Amino acid sequence: MRSAILPGSFDPPTNGHLNLIKRAAELADELYVIISVNRAKKYMFSEQERLEMMKELLKDCKNITVVSWDRLIVDFARERDIHVMIRGVRALVDFEYEFELAMTNKQLYKDLEIIFLPTDPRYFVLRTSAIKELASYGAEISSMVPDIVAKKLQYKLNMLTLGDN
Amino acid sequence: MRSAILPGSFDPPTNGHLNLIKRAAELADELYVIISVNRAKKYMFSEQERLEMMKELLKDCKNITVVSWDRLIVDFARERDIHVMIRGVRALVDFEYEFELAMTNKQLYKDLEIIFLPTDPRYFVLRTSAIKELASYGAEISSMVPDIVAKKLQYKLNMLTLGDN
Amino acid sequence: MRSAILPGSFDPPTNGHLNLIKRAAELADELYVIISVNRAKKYMFSEQERLEMMKELLKDCKNITVVSWDRLIVDFARERDIHVMIRGVRALVDFEYEFELAMTNKQLYKDLEIIFLPTDPRYFVLRTSAIKELASYGAEISSMVPDIVAKKLQYKLNMLTLGDN
Amino acid sequence: MRSAILPGSFDPPTNGHLNLIKRAAELADELYVIISVNRAKKYMFSEQERLEMMKELLKDCKNITVVSWDRLIVDFARERDIHVMIRGVRALVDFEYEFELAMTNKQLYKDLEIIFLPTDPRYFVLRTSAIKELASYGAEISSMVPDIVAKKLQYKLNMLTLGDN
Amino acid sequence: MRSAILPGSFDPPTNGHLNLIKRAAELADELYVIISVNRAKKYMFSEQERLEMMKELLKDCKNITVVSWDRLIVDFARERDIHVMIRGVRALVDFEYEFELAMTNKQLYKDLEIIFLPTDPRYFVLRTSAIKELASYGAEISSMVPDIVAKKLQYKLNMLTLGDN
Amino acid sequence: MRSAILPGSFDPPTNGHLNLIKRAAELADELYVIISVNRAKKYMFSEQERLEMMKELLKDCKNITVVSWDRLIVDFARERDIHVMIRGVRALVDFEYEFELAMTNKQLYKDLEIIFLPTDPRYFVLRTSAIKELASYGAEISSMVPDIVAKKLQYKLNMLTLGDN
Repeated sequence: MRSAILPGSFDPPTNGHLNLIKRAAELADELYVIISVNRAKKYMFSEQERLEMMKELLKDCKNITVVSWDRLIVDFARERDIHVMIRGVRALVDFEYEFELAMTNKQLYKDLEIIFLPTDPRYFVLRTSAIKELASYGAEISSMVPDIVAKKLQYKLNMLTLGDN
Repeated sequence: MRSAILPGSFDPPTNGHLNLIKRAAELADELYVIISVNRAKKYMFSEQERLEMMKELLKDCKNITVVSWDRLIVDFARERDIHVMIRGVRALVDFEYEFELAMTNKQLYKDLEIIFLPTDPRYFVLRTSAIKELASYGAEISSMVPDIVAKKLQYKLNMLTLGDN
Repeated sequence: MRSAILPGSFDPPTNGHLNLIKRAAELADELYVIISVNRAKKYMFSEQERLEMMKELLKDCKNITVVSWDRLIVDFARERDIHVMIRGVRALVDFEYEFELAMTNKQLYKDLEIIFLPTDPRYFVLRTSAIKELASYGAEISSMVPDIVAKKLQYKLNMLTLGDN
Repeated sequence: MRSAILPGSFDPPTNGHLNLIKRAAELADELYVIISVNRAKKYMFSEQERLEMMKELLKDCKNITVVSWDRLIVDFARERDIHVMIRGVRALVDFEYEFELAMTNKQLYKDLEIIFLPTDPRYFVLRTSAIKELASYGAEISSMVPDIVAKKLQYKLNMLTLGDN
Repeated sequence: MRSAILPGSFDPPTNGHLNLIKRAAELADELYVIISVNRAKKYMFSEQERLEMMKELLKDCKNITVVSWDRLIVDFARERDIHVMIRGVRALVDFEYEFELAMTNKQLYKDLEIIFLPTDPRYFVLRTSAIKELASYGAEISSMVPDIVAKKLQYKLNMLTLGDN
Repeated sequence: MRSAILPGSFDPPTNGHLNLIKRAAELADELYVIISVNRAKKYMFSEQERLEMMKELLKDCKNITVVSWDRLIVDFARERDIHVMIRGVRALVDFEYEFELAMTNKQLYKDLEIIFLPTDPRYFVLRTSAIKELASYGAEISSMVPDIVAKKLQYKLNMLTLGDN
């Protein structure tokens, strides 16, 4: 496998994401981690913040390039002549959605192969939205996200609470 | 991805199997198609027959090696220092089983990565057991299996019927 | 909907089957209940016994015809120019299997429409194999099968036990 | 099957919807396509727009009547003494939801039979929300919706973007 | 089982909730029904209203205590040294979510055992959001919620409609 | 919870079974582990062997009684006036089956409450049939079953192989 893409919101990156990305980087000669930017979605962290966190977290991985992208993911692949997309699947509900997404993407770009990597059971529960909710309740999340993310998340949540007043 | 294995019973090989194998061979530098032999299972085609059919069907694929194997699949990978297993997933029920199998295999061989390829919807319905049942009813299966398999399957079914007498 | 088929093993017919058949007969002008005969399967009740029980149970339904059939179900439909097959679906696992079967049947006979009727929750648990197992333990099954079936099932089970000696 | 209803949001109608509606119209003598209007939901196209598009798209189908309805769907059926509702099911997640909805509807109107039609695999991926998202990215959607819908969708999206300024 | 907690939004309490709570109270010596308060969620009924309704509905159950709680549910259990959480599961989609939630909760509080009670099929369809939607359409919901809830719900919906003006 | 039953084939007992049983014994004052004997099923270990292994493995658990039973499980509960059955659920496919089984059992014995305990993820993959297959291939299973079971399983497999000659 020469080049592959691994897209996601990464809002913010979790230990589960990092585990998936590093395993994917073992499979491809060159891996593009794509931080997707959908203008219609609300993110907790800005495009710039997500990009910086991910770059910092993956700075030691030689064959990984981190980019952000605000158009169709398949267009990124098509423009760079990349033919493999890697997606993590954690559970059945994920799989149903991923299967459908894969077929839609293949309909948009015939030469794309989508492959699924099963999530490591240790990171099974780390759905990003759940981690953010837990953090908002002050739960201990140091085993779920890298340190730099835990700090930024705490800072962001404090800001939001202040903003409530 | 340097080397990968793609195991299965292939009893007999179908168009769905061939589609999966050829797509997998695009991802790996070297692909081992492993015809699994489980002494406790009954097959319609012998180890030798399945091996010959598969070799014939894949003779033009330069980076594919076809072998048969009667021990644990992970042992094949371990002995050749291969770290990737590729599995096709067709539907949710498949996925549940595959996910469980993946975790069992990983427990037996920590350095193995299992990746899933979604089945091409055109070959969605070609479960091997269904094809054999359809053939036994004389249904038209030429779109489901390669010609040489269709012929051998017909011959085998005629033999079985004669054996009934 | 002019004519429709509703195939099954009906080994033996249950209250759940009858509920489904009668609801299907409301939808079609003419309904063929097909007792499928697969030479490779073992049945508790013979083709003749299943046919007689079903005819007896449905004798008051004017637009229902009961037949047995030992070839591909789609061939029955094709030969009579019938374009609708009705199937009951009870739960998700059923649905996955039925969806796949529907696509296989449509591949064999393009002009066939397969429609699914959800099982009435009152008959939700009446999987035929479970009823037979319960009966073999002497459980009370009078709410699960019609009287004539309960009697024949008891008689059959007594015969099998005698045959053990 | 005399009369049947086929309700949906149809916001906007897709090729998958049309395929389903036309197959349903083969099963019923008279089919009511109901454009549901839920005052608590936000639609991209108004009740009037959805009604007009659907009428235009189905104008050649003699036994189809298109209506919009802002009350409980079962009340439409009850008031016209219709006993059959047809729903498309595309995948397992759909089915789970549909099964539940069917039981709720049956609880509200005992004499209603709900039947499921499996989606044609060619239209498998055409979830309306996905098509709208793809269109917002400028993806090619001409194979997913009828021409008149593609044009209106493009116009609507341009309006929305202008509205952003 | 000495003490157990049974948390939920109960916005508002339904007959399905009450059935579950009463069955759970048979299993534990002491049952805490926890009305969860998530500051980020919007409820139809206030914390105070939900607490009062639930207390009124359960006033005859000697071993049940009703409380409201705005922190992590596991913290309630930990602070009172309770080791059992009871959850109702109604269908597969529920189960997937519940399984994941159970693992997250166990990660936050190792000594917690989460047990699932299957919903009584009679209350199968009573998802709270569906009941509220049905009520907003004026559907008959007296079989789905207790009388005092039906009245408050009707009053609340009338207020909302007035507020629209 | 005063008394509860936990039935199973336990052919042979695994570490996953023991984890489940010990957690269940924390919930009930008195737990009956029932080794089910179905005359129509083939077991690897006899009723007597399964009973002895389980008794040995649980001899230190004061509130657990191990019994074997060859009739309907619900009859055991009914005859001892026990109202709770505990079942482990490992995955969605399990859950579907267990939900159905629970409803059948409740139909046979109205006063029975069935509760589900999620399997500890560490024992997620230990389906008994898979362990037996792995052992037959000589795989390392010491982390999957207790020592005394591993030895008996090895002995049994050696006997079977000798019997082949």
